[in-house]
Amino acid sequence: MANIKPLDDRVVVQPMEAEEKTKGGIVLPETAKEKPIKGKIIAVGEGKLLENGKRADLLVKVGDVVLYGKYAGTEVTVDGKEYLIMRESDILAKVN
Amino acid sequence: MANIKPLDDRVVVQPMEAEEKTKGGIVLPETAKEKPIKGKIIAVGEGKLLENGKRADLLVKVGDVVLYGKYAGTEVTVDGKEYLIMRESDILAKVN
Amino acid sequence: MANIKPLDDRVVVQPMEAEEKTKGGIVLPETAKEKPIKGKIIAVGEGKLLENGKRADLLVKVGDVVLYGKYAGTEVTVDGKEYLIMRESDILAKVN
Amino acid sequence: MANIKPLDDRVVVQPMEAEEKTKGGIVLPETAKEKPIKGKIIAVGEGKLLENGKRADLLVKVGDVVLYGKYAGTEVTVDGKEYLIMRESDILAKVN
Amino acid sequence: MANIKPLDDRVVVQPMEAEEKTKGGIVLPETAKEKPIKGKIIAVGEGKLLENGKRADLLVKVGDVVLYGKYAGTEVTVDGKEYLIMRESDILAKVN
Amino acid sequence: MANIKPLDDRVVVQPMEAEEKTKGGIVLPETAKEKPIKGKIIAVGEGKLLENGKRADLLVKVGDVVLYGKYAGTEVTVDGKEYLIMRESDILAKVN
Amino acid sequence: MANIKPLDDRVVVQPMEAEEKTKGGIVLPETAKEKPIKGKIIAVGEGKLLENGKRADLLVKVGDVVLYGKYAGTEVTVDGKEYLIMRESDILAKVN
Repeated sequence: MANIKPLDDRVVVQPMEAEEKTKGGIVLPETAKEKPIKGKIIAVGEGKLLENGKRADLLVKVGDVVLYGKYAGTEVTVDGKEYLIMRESDILAKVN
Repeated sequence: MANIKPLDDRVVVQPMEAEEKTKGGIVLPETAKEKPIKGKIIAVGEGKLLENGKRADLLVKVGDVVLYGKYAGTEVTVDGKEYLIMRESDILAKVN
Repeated sequence: MANIKPLDDRVVVQPMEAEEKTKGGIVLPETAKEKPIKGKIIAVGEGKLLENGKRADLLVKVGDVVLYGKYAGTEVTVDGKEYLIMRESDILAKVN
Repeated sequence: MANIKPLDDRVVVQPMEAEEKTKGGIVLPETAKEKPIKGKIIAVGEGKLLENGKRADLLVKVGDVVLYGKYAGTEVTVDGKEYLIMRESDILAKVN
Repeated sequence: MANIKPLDDRVVVQPMEAEEKTKGGIVLPETAKEKPIKGKIIAVGEGKLLENGKRADLLVKVGDVVLYGKYAGTEVTVDGKEYLIMRESDILAKVN
Repeated sequence: MANIKPLDDRVVVQPMEAEEKTKGGIVLPETAKEKPIKGKIIAVGEGKLLENGKRADLLVKVGDVVLYGKYAGTEVTVDGKEYLIMRESDILAKVN
Repeated sequence: MANIKPLDDRVVVQPMEAEEKTKGGIVLPETAKEKPIKGKIIAVGEGKLLENGKRADLLVKVGDVVLYGKYAGTEVTVDGKEYLIMRESDILAKVN
């Protein structure tokens, strides 16, 4: 797969089917209400730039399954597959 | 229950019935006015990122009963149960 | 009374009757104009979080009588009594 | 007079009659245009909170005569007299 | 002349006639377009408050002739003369 | 080619044809939806100014192929060729 | 020419004719679209004030030819010539 290296405190997420149940049984039905969406992290950036010039470690890593807001991120298509590039601050939680 | 690990200074709250009285007698009737809502903390994040790269400790912990604004947080359903993911800054007070 | 522990730089205030005169003679008639309102502090939070991770001491303490803006805070009812949860920055002055 | 202790970087000002001339001859006629208003400082707060947790000294003190914007501050009545509670940043200048 | 001591990073400016030519030949005709206006500094404040509690030195001093935006500052009349109180950040340049 | 030296945390990007496939197979069809656009970095600035007066290193360098938002940057024409000048924060990811 | 000393992180720019070609062949036709404009730096300020009270060095110097946004800066006329006073952050790039 093309190598996408997100910048700064961004991550690349592969969205998971809304109906899909995780082992832990999280169901995210496609309802009208603004349910968070689920996906897997496939690439992470360098972390957020701090005023002292250093970068803060990201809280998520490749392989984590995460919940994020319905309108988070920007879509990009790679080899016909849709991914989202978003900032870590758009991610609500990790789930397993 | 699925394991939800909120990110950063977020927490997961299990809303409590509005009419329910706590030992301390706090009643939160479902009135038209914007009454705060009550719930129990079931998971906490790593804490808010500071400019020096460290994270500030959260003021709430798992098991605390808290009051929060009516429109706080994002809903997520786990095993058919509704939870809220919100930032600690949405929480008004702890009650017991 | 239920124990309400306000979070961060918030305080819990018990509003005082607008017409009531304090020893010092402060009258806060319920006029149309936006007069500040008076109340007593009954609980205080941990103080505001600073960038160095410490918390700043609050300027008010339990028992202080304070003036605050008419629309300050969020209402909560405890044992049938109305209280306000607000941030210290909503408080204009202490009076005695 | 009731003791009002303004909070933080606020001050209590006793407005002076607009037409009144100071020794220095400053006239502030009640014109339509947004002329600054004049008044005397009767109480000062603790000063502005800085990120290091300390407080910055205020630039004005009790007794100073100051100019401030027409819409600055919140009115409070004490013993039938009108005062204004405002932040020091609303004050334009000291005059004598 | 009444003594006006501007506060913080403010200065008091005595506007100069728009048509007046300086030695250096700067002409500021009263055109419809938003030409900067010219004036002389007659009083300066203590300087801008920094987060470490110190104050930054001002870049202008009494006697400097400066250019500033047409809508900068607040008017005040002293002994029948119009002055402007503005923040140093409203000043575009010094001219001589 | 004219030498353009972008300032601060800006970069100069040479946009690549939307349909063009990279080795990694990233396709960015010109659809109505807001797909990120791709281009090559041809010049970089000094980096973002930090409060301590130093500059943070940029994350991208000349020659990198990057994805950026559709409305990012300002167009400039050099020798008849169109380039974009944008801030590094407008860049979503590096791709190869 | 009158001596204009821009303040803070501002600079004075002498706009160059839009059609004019630089050695490097940069053409900036007066099209409807928002093309950046070109000009020469004729005076620079003290640099941006930092929270530690020092000033950051400017990235441009007198004599540099720069590109800036079409609506950047404030016009001033000196000896019948039009100049622009703008902040360094309005400048996109240096060109030669």
